[in-house]
Amino acid sequence: MTSDQLITQNTITHFFQDLQDRICQALVDTDRAVGPQLTPDFREDTWQRPGGGGGRSRTLSGGNVIEKGGVGFSAVHGEATEATLRSLNLTEPAQFFATGVSIVIHPHSPMVPIIHMNVRYFEMSSGHSWFGGGIDLTPHYVVAEDAHWFHQQLKTVCDRHDPAYYDRFKPWADDYFYIPHRQETRGIGGIFFDYLKPDSPAHKADLFAFVQDVGNAFAPIYTHFMRQNQSIPYGEREKQWQFQRRGRYVEFNLVWDRGTKFGLETNGRTESILMSMPPQANWTYDFRPEAGSREEETLGLLKKGNNWAN
Amino acid sequence: MTSDQLITQNTITHFFQDLQDRICQALVDTDRAVGPQLTPDFREDTWQRPGGGGGRSRTLSGGNVIEKGGVGFSAVHGEATEATLRSLNLTEPAQFFATGVSIVIHPHSPMVPIIHMNVRYFEMSSGHSWFGGGIDLTPHYVVAEDAHWFHQQLKTVCDRHDPAYYDRFKPWADDYFYIPHRQETRGIGGIFFDYLKPDSPAHKADLFAFVQDVGNAFAPIYTHFMRQNQSIPYGEREKQWQFQRRGRYVEFNLVWDRGTKFGLETNGRTESILMSMPPQANWTYDFRPEAGSREEETLGLLKKGNNWAN
Repeated sequence: MTSDQLITQNTITHFFQDLQDRICQALVDTDRAVGPQLTPDFREDTWQRPGGGGGRSRTLSGGNVIEKGGVGFSAVHGEATEATLRSLNLTEPAQFFATGVSIVIHPHSPMVPIIHMNVRYFEMSSGHSWFGGGIDLTPHYVVAEDAHWFHQQLKTVCDRHDPAYYDRFKPWADDYFYIPHRQETRGIGGIFFDYLKPDSPAHKADLFAFVQDVGNAFAPIYTHFMRQNQSIPYGEREKQWQFQRRGRYVEFNLVWDRGTKFGLETNGRTESILMSMPPQANWTYDFRPEAGSREEETLGLLKKGNNWAN
Repeated sequence: MTSDQLITQNTITHFFQDLQDRICQALVDTDRAVGPQLTPDFREDTWQRPGGGGGRSRTLSGGNVIEKGGVGFSAVHGEATEATLRSLNLTEPAQFFATGVSIVIHPHSPMVPIIHMNVRYFEMSSGHSWFGGGIDLTPHYVVAEDAHWFHQQLKTVCDRHDPAYYDRFKPWADDYFYIPHRQETRGIGGIFFDYLKPDSPAHKADLFAFVQDVGNAFAPIYTHFMRQNQSIPYGEREKQWQFQRRGRYVEFNLVWDRGTKFGLETNGRTESILMSMPPQANWTYDFRPEAGSREEETLGLLKKGNNWAN
């Protein structure tokens, strides 16, 4: 697509819907290739939003690598809420349109990281429009080499579009995926961006090309970790640590994640919003890893400002 | 205590601290009596609040009946937050004092209910003061007979103090312990009350006597269920249902419970606030119980407005 083509709602919607298809296929193919004894299945639910539009929620379970995963697509529209109008300084009623793809994958193995990806586009009848999204990784055990590789992939995507993007979107992810009440980041971050507003049709095409690249980067990145980490041995101790870390994932999503909170408070489709929940999470009062353990080392790395790409 | 005695901060604090002791003793004694093979232990953490005051958090684990429980006491004071001052229409800085006991018990057996109790007192240097609290029950399987007995106990406590209390505080619990995004109540409710403001020393003594009665009702009520339900047989199906219901408990506490949210957002002691988390919770996409099953029957009873006391 060249920069001077007109990017319409339909163009973006069709890209996102196709992205969902391609990602699901890549996940299933890799899950089968890595361990052919189980055949994972996607369950698909298509749903209508009472106020306008709908979506297609796909959930994967029973895989060799993936224990519980959700890949959601939606394209919804309707009357903008009071809060949206206020945030845009609009005094008249307006219509909104929003489309996007959201993914969270929880693997069986604590040696394979949890991943989250979101790409989205928002448009108002008043003419305002913007893109948002990001990819972030939550390893149960942080491995510096993997963190470096992951951030390098994201930096490469960013650099193709704007040399300033990575340095802007990487700290944004550190700030967004932060759990204040634990003083921990959710994982090793990644990139996060929002309100990328086009100021011309050509700029809109550029922003869309970037968002497409982010979406397309998901499958190669995560299938790399599926293949590379699936065979790493682990035992009961690592499983217990995984359950504790998943507890933190739940705490972040339910207490701090703006998207989850907004969805639950505005009567969104609960099962689609909570596709991000892990299959099992544990809480132990005041759990502290042993001094000098790999678990303690991981906790020490769940901080903002690590320059993983270097 | 007669109604014309002066109720001071110290009187209330000492009652709450002693209540924590007595409840812990009753829980441990009953847990041992019901199944003497395990000796449950309370771990005690005393903590100081940087801004003033502190608390004593006790957590029980490894019991015969109780899998994970927390019984917290705190008495804290300091500068009131802007939000508190605003809610009281105060324009000058003021000091607050708050003390209370909070309990959540998660049993091993899905046939024994989860219980929550809180009693609290709040006072401002401006002269404002109030009591709050309540007890509510979250059975994994709702049994009408047990629900009736539980609400009768609470109604009896209420009726001793004011014949209007139960009819006021029972719906308040229905409204408070509600999960809008699931359109379910958390459990079978109970009583909930807040901002009970004394308008005279005698009234304060009356309100305190009621709050004492609520606190004292906890141990007899819960130890009744511990003894009665512990020996009811169950299998893997009931355990899986318990894990799903605990997921709902997590959702309520992290998304909707004002106390939890306030604590986490204002830099409270995280481990004490999250003592309410279950030892293990599971999420399954779009989990639906079989038609005609006991699980489905329970879902049908998790509604506001059930007249359990009748």
